[in-house]
Amino acid sequence: MTRVLGIDPGTRLTGWGVIEPAGPRARLIATGVIRAGDSKPLEQRLKIVHDGLRDVVAEHAPTTVAVEDIFFAKYANAALKLGHARGVALFVAADAGLEVFAYPPALVKRSVAGRGAADKTQVARLVGALLGMRELPTVDATDALAIALTHLQAVRARGMTAAAAPKRKPRA
Amino acid sequence: MTRVLGIDPGTRLTGWGVIEPAGPRARLIATGVIRAGDSKPLEQRLKIVHDGLRDVVAEHAPTTVAVEDIFFAKYANAALKLGHARGVALFVAADAGLEVFAYPPALVKRSVAGRGAADKTQVARLVGALLGMRELPTVDATDALAIALTHLQAVRARGMTAAAAPKRKPRA
Repeated sequence: MTRVLGIDPGTRLTGWGVIEPAGPRARLIATGVIRAGDSKPLEQRLKIVHDGLRDVVAEHAPTTVAVEDIFFAKYANAALKLGHARGVALFVAADAGLEVFAYPPALVKRSVAGRGAADKTQVARLVGALLGMRELPTVDATDALAIALTHLQAVRARGMTAAAAPKRKPRA
Repeated sequence: MTRVLGIDPGTRLTGWGVIEPAGPRARLIATGVIRAGDSKPLEQRLKIVHDGLRDVVAEHAPTTVAVEDIFFAKYANAALKLGHARGVALFVAADAGLEVFAYPPALVKRSVAGRGAADKTQVARLVGALLGMRELPTVDATDALAIALTHLQAVRARGMTAAAAPKRKPRA
């Protein structure tokens, strides 16, 4: 059974969501946000991100981690900051022996919202509907759930189990 | 006693060096390079960086970690890549309960080479001389040693122990 942990890492907020297939659909196992704040030194915030994700992995036992592939053309400082949190998230996955898949943001958007433009609230509504959630997911965890859904859809589209799916390396 | 671990993180090569004060000078405890290669998936390389640095901390018991402060105006992809490794390095420091100090690259260069321009080999020679090393440090570990030396000099310049020195937060 594939159980996917989607992660949307950040040095302030890290969204996460664990889902698994349910027949032709998907169901939510758990979702949340790790809040590292913005007043602590960066290394302390990274430890909070690490420890939070490690606890999520221990509690919900995902088989697979999905993140966004990142291409930044501009905004080097944003890229550097994001890189710190993403690096810690990928380390947690590797440390737990989990496979990592990365998907381009455009594919994540398309998987959840089709071709239509969608703002954050619309995406939250669509993700909630796809997972049969009674309450909308929190906006900060929505992207993580969307990434996890993208992985399940990609695996299905290829008619493969996650184990057989071609591994997409996160960009170095 | 202050014992400084300087780290020059990278997703391929991570240089490190541990030094401590020796009278008015400094002496080398140990130095090396963690080689994560460039063929493995990024998350595996980050685990190699993490495990290598964790082992260095366990073996050489530094009290303090020093890294370069980073300001990138351009090259977002390089910043993103570097951010992954730097994030893992900072996490290792925080996880071990060590204080982290960050110094601007220009200060590191000035601390070791004075005002003169210096290429990599010259810097290696200067660092080797400052630490009384019989052999030149490997080029890949030279920057890490230079960063550690910068911290000791900064602490001395302020006439403070490391514990009393104002903490410089790594840039978020």
